[in-house]
This record gives sequence, C-alpha cells and structure tokens, in this order.
Amino acid sequence: MGDFATMWSELQDVGRAPSGGYRRFTFATAELECREWFAAQAGHRGLEVETDRNGNVWAWWHPEAASDESALVVGSHLDSVPDGGAFDGPLGIVAAFASIDSLRLDGFIPRRPLAIAAFAEEEGARFGIACAGSRLLTGQLDGDRARGLTDSDGITLAEAARRSGIDPEGMGADPERLKRIGQFVELHIEQGRCLADSGHPIAIAESIWPHGRYRFTFDGESNHAGTTRMEHRRDPMTPCARMIVAAETAGRQANARATIGRLKVEPNGTNAIPSRVTAWLDARAATESDLDALLEQIKFGAAQGAAASAVHVNFEAESVTGLTTFDPLLTERMGSALTVAGLSRGVPVIPTGAGHDAGVLATAGIPSGMLFVRNPSGVSHSPDEFAEAEDCLAGVEALAAVIRELA
Amino acid sequence: MGDFATMWSELQDVGRAPSGGYRRFTFATAELECREWFAAQAGHRGLEVETDRNGNVWAWWHPEAASDESALVVGSHLDSVPDGGAFDGPLGIVAAFASIDSLRLDGFIPRRPLAIAAFAEEEGARFGIACAGSRLLTGQLDGDRARGLTDSDGITLAEAARRSGIDPEGMGADPERLKRIGQFVELHIEQGRCLADSGHPIAIAESIWPHGRYRFTFDGESNHAGTTRMEHRRDPMTPCARMIVAAETAGRQANARATIGRLKVEPNGTNAIPSRVTAWLDARAATESDLDALLEQIKFGAAQGAAASAVHVNFEAESVTGLTTFDPLLTERMGSALTVAGLSRGVPVIPTGAGHDAGVLATAGIPSGMLFVRNPSGVSHSPDEFAEAEDCLAGVEALAAVIRELA
Repeated sequence: MGDFATMWSELQDVGRAPSGGYRRFTFATAELECREWFAAQAGHRGLEVETDRNGNVWAWWHPEAASDESALVVGSHLDSVPDGGAFDGPLGIVAAFASIDSLRLDGFIPRRPLAIAAFAEEEGARFGIACAGSRLLTGQLDGDRARGLTDSDGITLAEAARRSGIDPEGMGADPERLKRIGQFVELHIEQGRCLADSGHPIAIAESIWPHGRYRFTFDGESNHAGTTRMEHRRDPMTPCARMIVAAETAGRQANARATIGRLKVEPNGTNAIPSRVTAWLDARAATESDLDALLEQIKFGAAQGAAASAVHVNFEAESVTGLTTFDPLLTERMGSALTVAGLSRGVPVIPTGAGHDAGVLATAGIPSGMLFVRNPSGVSHSPDEFAEAEDCLAGVEALAAVIRELA
Repeated sequence: MGDFATMWSELQDVGRAPSGGYRRFTFATAELECREWFAAQAGHRGLEVETDRNGNVWAWWHPEAASDESALVVGSHLDSVPDGGAFDGPLGIVAAFASIDSLRLDGFIPRRPLAIAAFAEEEGARFGIACAGSRLLTGQLDGDRARGLTDSDGITLAEAARRSGIDPEGMGADPERLKRIGQFVELHIEQGRCLADSGHPIAIAESIWPHGRYRFTFDGESNHAGTTRMEHRRDPMTPCARMIVAAETAGRQANARATIGRLKVEPNGTNAIPSRVTAWLDARAATESDLDALLEQIKFGAAQGAAASAVHVNFEAESVTGLTTFDPLLTERMGSALTVAGLSRGVPVIPTGAGHDAGVLATAGIPSGMLFVRNPSGVSHSPDEFAEAEDCLAGVEALAAVIRELA
C-alpha cells in the first residue's frame, strides 16, 4: 500500500465513462468515492481528515512541536470535467501523498503543520463556477449565491451538499482556516505543450491568464420547421452560430483563447425552430485589456447576428478572474529547492491559460505556487490526457523537495 | 359528454409543460393518457377500439350491412413535438369524433365501415423518425430498423412498445389492414399563414413538399479550453456553426426551408473543447431537384468548415420523402362536398411544407386527402400555436360534409 502506482490504480476505475474519460462531478457518486479513497489514504498515514464548511477535504500532519505555526498546504482537486482525463486534479493529490511517503522514508519531520487539501468543484462541471470550493473559502464566492447554484437536473449546491452530510448554511468565507494557511503549492499536469516543446519534465508556474466564463442567451420564437418561411422566422440558432464563428476568428486574431464547449437548445426537436439557444463562452487572454477586447469583438458578432434574425440576445459574465501572478519569493524558493534536488537541466517558469485553486488562493493573498508535470501531447480535459510515469515520479520528487525546503 | 369543447378541455392538461406547450411522447405517460382518452371517447360512442401491430389505435364504426366494403378512415395523431401546441394532431382526432356526433344527430348511417385512426409517433419526437406508425403500417419503415430506434435515454422503440403491451415482434408492414383502407382524410391545423392571408377558415391540401431529416456528425478532438492554442485545435463546434449559417443562407436563397433545431454537444462542458457535435437538419423544398440543390449547398458549407478546422464530418439521411401529390379525384370530391355544405366563399387548395400520415398513406397508393384549419399566426410546434374555436367548428362541419360525401 502507498506507492504511487498503487494509489493510481485504485483511482483508475472510479467514475470512468465509456469514452475512457472520467465523470467525477462534485458530490455525485464517483466523486464521493474519490473522497473516501482520500480519507483512507490519509488514515493509512495517520493523517487527520476533516471536511471544511465548504466541502473541501483536508488531511493534516500535525508535528508535535509546532502547532501554532502557519501550515504548508499542498494538494489539488478530485473532481473532473465531463469525460476528462485521469491526471487533471488527482495527479496533485496522489503526488502529495507520495511525497509525504518519500520524505518520511528519509526521516523528515516538518517544522510546521502540513496539510493535503482536495478542493471541491474545481472544474465547475456540476454547478457552473470553477474553483467554487476555494472561492467560497476565500470569500470570492458568496455563500448565498453558491447555495442557489443548480446542476443540469435542477439540484442546488445546497441540496447536494446536504445529501453529502455538509450543512449548506455553513458555506462561505472561512477566515480562521485561511489564516492557518501559510503557503499553498499545487502540482498539476500541464495542459499545454510548453514542457513537451522545451524538453523539460517539470516547470514552475509564473502566472495565470485573465479568464472568464460568459453566457449568451438567444431568445427567438419556436415554430414549425417545415411551414415557416425563412423570412418569417425568429430563429435563435443562426445568431448563436454567427457568434461561435466570431469567437473563433477573434480568438485566433488576438492570440487568445475563445471556446464554446457547451450549448443548450430548447426545445431541441428536429422539426421545431428553437425558442432559445444558450451558449457558454470560455475566454482567456494574456492581459486584462486583451480579454476585454476579445469579449467586445465576440459580443459584437452576437449582437449583429441577433439583429439580423430579429432575436434578443442577453450576455452575462458567470465568473471572471483577473491576471494572477504567483508569489515571486515563493517561486524563487521553489526553483532553488528543485536545483538542490538535482533537476539540473533547469526548470522553466511559464504562464498558463488554465485557472487553478492555487490562483484563487494567490488572489486572496496567500503565497501560492504551482508545479507542472510534462504532458507530451498537451491534451487535457479529454480521455486522451496523458503523462509518462517517469515524469509523474519526477513531479513527486520535485514536490518532496519543495516541501522539504518550505516545511 | 361529447361536444367539441368538452373533449378539448379533457385533453387540455395532459402532458402540459411549464412552457404552456405539450410533451406527449410516444408510449410515455402523457401520450398513453391520450390513448386512454381516445379509447374512452370511442367507448362512449359504441365504436370498437383496437391497437394495431404498429401501435396505431383505431376506433371502428361497423355499419351492419356493409362489412365487406373498404373503409373510410379519418384521423390524425396524439403525440407532440417537445413543447408543441395543443392543435397539431389532437385537433384532427377531436374533430373526427365531433363529426361523427354531428352526422349521427342528423340520422346519418354510413354505407361502408368508418374508422378514426390515431397514428403513432407522427412527430418522430421520441424515436427520430416522423410518421413512424404509418410508415411501419405501409412498409415504408422496416420492422427491424424500427425496433432498434432509440430515444434520448437509450430506450428502444421495441422496449417502449413492449412496456405498453405491444409485442414489438409484430411491427412491420400490415398489408391486410392496409387493404381495408379505401380512403384516408386527415384534418389538421394549418402550420403556415396561407389561410390567415387569404381570409378562408378551411383549405384542402394539394401536395406535400419533398422533405427530409439529415444528420451531420462533426468529429474533432476534445481538449482544454484555456491552454490549447487556437491553431492546435480540432474543434467540431466551429464547422457546425458554419454549416448552420450556410443552411440559413441556402434556405433563404432557394425559397425553401432549412432548420437546425436539434444539437448534441459532447461532452458539453464549458471549459472543454468538444470532441463531437451532432446537428440534425430538417430541409424541405417545393421540388425534389430544389431539395437536392439545397442539400448540396449545405453539405458544401459543412465540408468547407470541417476542412478549415481539421475535423471529420459525416452526413447521413435519416428519412427522406419525395413530393406527395394528394389524390386529385378525392380532392375534387372533397371540394364539391364543402361547396354543397355551404362553405360558399370557396375553399383554397394549397401545398404544404409539413409531412403528415396522410402523405405516407398517399405514397402507399391509398387515395388520401387533407383539410386544413386556419392558424391566425401561422405558428406551430410551439406553445403559441392557436386556432379560433369558430374555425375549429368550421373544420368539424367540413369533415362531416366530407364523410357524408364519401361514406
């Protein structure tokens, strides 16, 4: 029990979809099974497990002589996007347990408390807001708003939490807990090709691009597909399609990212013109002004399309995060630790387009950093996401070196 | 019991959705309740009820002296599109019962058997093939193919039929039953504005446009929305959007109809580039060559979009129906009957873009005709579908006159 490969194989079948990807949605069966696995791993190691008021789970290593020091927290998340890969999230958790094993084998005892955290609803795949667990903890997401979020079946986050034994009334900012976190380090698979291109197994994160999720709702008029003349229609599908084309064009031109990965068509019948089409836009850019310009261009495309089809369009930002720069001092110490540990060919420091709990904690003023593990294809949020075992073990080694340096 | 308004009010709440429209899907609860209502109405009138091998229900009026004559069949369907209107289908059934009441009050006894038929799955809303019940009966839809059709939950038509007490093994062409149908007349709400524009309450159908349902499947590569550069993507959403725009343009140019009312996005997550987008096209045109030209233009748009995004596109025709011309002799007799009945301002004879069971029976060689009832807005397949009570009663009167003439 306990080595990296064993832990990995224990998670392998949990929430696996026919596609080969994973469906681990917050507080649904597969994700609860991952939480049980987490508690069992902590138990094996004599770590104390607790679930906080916002559904995040923690495994604490309290060294005898240092209970009033702030803690070093490492970790990531257990939930997945629909049909996501095996590594996005769980790699950071498994690597954290494996790092502790490795440090203990060496006789290492931390001078301060150490915790492994698994943050809830990092992907926002069930309730729509990414990093909901860490945003609640830090007060960036309001408890009332969170309780009212619904999944695609209309179940509220409050109800889902209650069914999992968490009192939803407790959700919201948790300053006492936050005060205990001295630093946070998240290890994660890279979700691009920087390391594959540069030939390094490990990188340190420099910053997270500004990014947001936005919702376009096109309201038209449902009617019969066979008998309604084209010029009498108020079809919301066409302006939505024009918006999608505009988003791709704008994303390319701005060297940014614009994605429409989720649509809802009502009533979604082959021979009925839809009454409403809802499209979710995920947009990211290197700077906040680039992101604003990107959005303006896409909104312009949507408005033009809507006007041409006599359709009403509504635009709403669901969540927006500005540029996040990771703590320079922490980043430097992480770099030194990796050099000391013998990652001799140098460790690149790179920006990323992906949001993470480490970014949320950094925004809340907690010195935070990230380690990336090479992804040979750059593919993520897909069943094809992959990392070589050798690179994962290099990640464990790197995380252990960082813990040794910081704790 | 028995008058038009009472029958109408009995159906008013069956399968009503929050939108105000109806969800009466073949062999699901609300549609089964409509079937029970149908059987009760037949029972009240001493008509003999039977469900045929393909799930169509029949109410027979067997006059004593004419059992070996072929039957006059009137009727329509009880199922609906998602959030469809109250009139599309049920108006033809309710009007048929009301016509019989009116004829009996006048002491009319038919010289040949008369039946009211409610055909199954006319909308194709649950299992994807419109007029599945009449297509099975006439052999235009193969029993094996029908049994294997699935709804959005993966339930097969065979299984749904079995749960409703119908042996799916019996599904398929039913020549004995077909031979008994001498003529078929379907009364239906108009699904366009011809009558509203011309000022007439009732029309006779001349023909049904060639029409079909086609499926485009765009296969790309799922990936992370935040970290995958636009130029590294194989996003199936963009070519689908280009196809939708091409369909609208082509439909307008050809004075035809091209509708994408149904989409499926996989995995449908906000921060994941989709792996697959499936779009269903409903296309109709005045002639078969017009329809072919329309399809070529839309397929070209899809292929261009797919090539630009390095995505694979597959095109499949799910069901295609050529031009249907209703029996000219029958149409003429219907016209005379309406003139005799005093619809003095003339009855227009119009083509329609909508498919109907009457078209399926006509294709099978059964003299068939249709009556349309004025729709003031032209809106159909929508909660807003409407007809004035006065025009519905004019429809009952017209149908009674046609039955008197033919039976």
